[in-house]
Amino acid sequence: MKIIIGNHIEHSILKLSNDDRIFSQRVIWFAEDGDLIILPSKPDMQFLQHVTSLTGVDANSLKFFVTSNNKSNEKHFDPQALYEEQFINSIRKEINNVTQVLPMWPSPAIAHFVEKLSLSDKLQGASFFLQNGVELVNNKAYFRVFATAAGAPIADGRVCHSIEEAELAIRNLLSINDAVMIKQAHNGAGAGNELLIRDKSLGVGHVGAVHMHVLSTANDPIKSYLDSRWNWASANGKRPVIIEEFIPDAKTIYAEFFANDEGVYFTGSGRLGYTNQRLVTEIAPLRGISKEVETKLTTYGESLAKFYQSIGYRGYLSADAVIEKDDNIVFTEVNSRVGGSLHVYDSIANKVVKAKEEPERTVVQYHSPLNWTPVAFETFHQFLEDNNLLYDSSKRKGILISLPILLEVGGYVSFCIVYENEQEEKQYYSLLDNHFSTKKLYL
Amino acid sequence: MKIIIGNHIEHSILKLSNDDRIFSQRVIWFAEDGDLIILPSKPDMQFLQHVTSLTGVDANSLKFFVTSNNKSNEKHFDPQALYEEQFINSIRKEINNVTQVLPMWPSPAIAHFVEKLSLSDKLQGASFFLQNGVELVNNKAYFRVFATAAGAPIADGRVCHSIEEAELAIRNLLSINDAVMIKQAHNGAGAGNELLIRDKSLGVGHVGAVHMHVLSTANDPIKSYLDSRWNWASANGKRPVIIEEFIPDAKTIYAEFFANDEGVYFTGSGRLGYTNQRLVTEIAPLRGISKEVETKLTTYGESLAKFYQSIGYRGYLSADAVIEKDDNIVFTEVNSRVGGSLHVYDSIANKVVKAKEEPERTVVQYHSPLNWTPVAFETFHQFLEDNNLLYDSSKRKGILISLPILLEVGGYVSFCIVYENEQEEKQYYSLLDNHFSTKKLYL
Repeated sequence: MKIIIGNHIEHSILKLSNDDRIFSQRVIWFAEDGDLIILPSKPDMQFLQHVTSLTGVDANSLKFFVTSNNKSNEKHFDPQALYEEQFINSIRKEINNVTQVLPMWPSPAIAHFVEKLSLSDKLQGASFFLQNGVELVNNKAYFRVFATAAGAPIADGRVCHSIEEAELAIRNLLSINDAVMIKQAHNGAGAGNELLIRDKSLGVGHVGAVHMHVLSTANDPIKSYLDSRWNWASANGKRPVIIEEFIPDAKTIYAEFFANDEGVYFTGSGRLGYTNQRLVTEIAPLRGISKEVETKLTTYGESLAKFYQSIGYRGYLSADAVIEKDDNIVFTEVNSRVGGSLHVYDSIANKVVKAKEEPERTVVQYHSPLNWTPVAFETFHQFLEDNNLLYDSSKRKGILISLPILLEVGGYVSFCIVYENEQEEKQYYSLLDNHFSTKKLYL
Repeated sequence: MKIIIGNHIEHSILKLSNDDRIFSQRVIWFAEDGDLIILPSKPDMQFLQHVTSLTGVDANSLKFFVTSNNKSNEKHFDPQALYEEQFINSIRKEINNVTQVLPMWPSPAIAHFVEKLSLSDKLQGASFFLQNGVELVNNKAYFRVFATAAGAPIADGRVCHSIEEAELAIRNLLSINDAVMIKQAHNGAGAGNELLIRDKSLGVGHVGAVHMHVLSTANDPIKSYLDSRWNWASANGKRPVIIEEFIPDAKTIYAEFFANDEGVYFTGSGRLGYTNQRLVTEIAPLRGISKEVETKLTTYGESLAKFYQSIGYRGYLSADAVIEKDDNIVFTEVNSRVGGSLHVYDSIANKVVKAKEEPERTVVQYHSPLNWTPVAFETFHQFLEDNNLLYDSSKRKGILISLPILLEVGGYVSFCIVYENEQEEKQYYSLLDNHFSTKKLYL
């Protein structure tokens, strides 16, 4: 049996999002018969039923634990529970022959927890994680340092430990380009990136940056920008800030690996699609890029994976890159954790769909389109059923629900379309969008 | 020729000390004929004359540059100068056949500077330093992470990214011991360490911690301690904080290495002596410890050096350790820079004194004893001359001045005693102390 822990980056590293109950339950995709799963709150039974019907797991064989029975605390995984004797003892009673401990974010609390359960040998890298190694290997500032040693190409830019260093770096980059990226050391899906541009007309919709700032025409606009945004960028002075050249018309791709004591293993690759600077789609496996780019991605990606393995990290890691116009690629970060793609490219594309078997399939996950009306799980599921859109394992096509849909958390929908060609994908999407969109816009 | 740069840790990493003119001039010990040396201010001519008379270098062959001609700025090396065209051009005119660039703190400004001079190949690791790799490899928090990967023993403890994590770590360590060490991520010579103790009577004079705090008997004393000291410990929230077990009766030792593209090379080892928690002596070569401890120091030290080399660092690095009562050692930090020991163990002990040649010699450097009266260089030097105490190269014994003595910076004295046995060392010291001490105390 595995112990799967649906935790996430901790408050000491990054301010928590409002509610993690949806995202934490993606771990159900990783379950096998008999696994024990720790979540912030009880799993959504409809989602559990949906996922296990696709993965072929016996839902009744899974044991669930929650870090809080207190309604007011259930929005977030509470790492404090992992230090509590009573909680540890209740889990100790339920485990035998544990083969692996699989946390989403291998924090010191996790390392302490496995030590107390005498399971440190089932979490490779436990002593590294006990010293908060996970913070280091998810830090975009130190990524730029490590990439130089691993020999992976990175965008022109600097790591800035003070507002003065940032001012100099921005000034230098804006002297050769009309835009720069300002990046927080920790954050994901573009939420930690801000694009600073001279001119509003620049084409920037594809960029993974939630924030955008147009330089004022005032005296010393860089200084006044930093005066207003340095605290955001540096997490109130807590972290270094990355200043990078802006790469026009870039596509975002990734290669993931699994690192263990023996080495690193390629586990999958895919593409992220940003619309209006917001992460909208995740596509797996990787399609529609040149052989040359794919080779660069996996070769340099493997160098980075080996580097992170050599400094002590164990577990899944994703090397993210953007493709420049001329088929060059530059790497932007390494995420050393179970990120938002593993269930898409591995659980769904590799295992449920077997996407690389003939006839080949592609999986695209959409995250809760902004102009959709909130729905309940059963409403969405019923619509798929009624319109014969539900994923059909005999045809290896259709739509499946990739994350819980919880009305109390906003009724957002995350789903995957499994398709043979792009026209088919558009048809599936249009059917959904026509029904659930409030504005009837095709994104 | 070499370019030697007497810079130091930058303001963005650590608040600068009041005046760096004394310490920066230690680089004169590293000069060879024809070298170019960049300092915050002009070298002290008496010190220059003293050092070169011992190293055999032609002082007139050295070219000095200063980062500021402005009297108000000369206390600190100004890294901004390294970005200025005029400064770069003035240096470009003076260099030919540069074999090595040797900064004390290889910052991004240094990497930029060598790039502008087309000398990046003379500063190994230039691309690593351009991304501020030097901050990472001098950070005591990440040292604890790296030590787990390098397999070097460290003290029990945690790396804390929030006050809550620190509270938990202190509570756990104080449940098994009467004292804990609180360490800043960046700082040196004990200035970044605070000893938190339950009981004033604990014997702690030997500890490398400038600060000490006795836990109050109030309710929740750990919390109230952290409320008052977290900002200090975390550099106003900018860095993680290290909480470590207190090691009673520990001696501090180090092994230094030089890392280049090919590998790492042992360069020397020594011991640091703390009195009343203040760094007072540096002794080289390493004497008076067991063969077993020395083997552990150099073996694990080499593992750490190789690790830091593997992640991209190039240059001198010191692996610091403390000896526990039972001849165990634990490592406390790696300093990846030219620290305060290189001129003592290498320039003075290895090269001037040839301390390991028969009859063997030992060198001890004393830093400005607190109860000495301020003196001028010539006063101190004259006293040595008049009393026949000046280092005598034929006898390989005596006293030499290791750092400039500047009355305007306080008239502090740093000197080295070169001796054959400890009794001799005590005699030398007593003669000085009897003359210069205001209190006539033997430290």
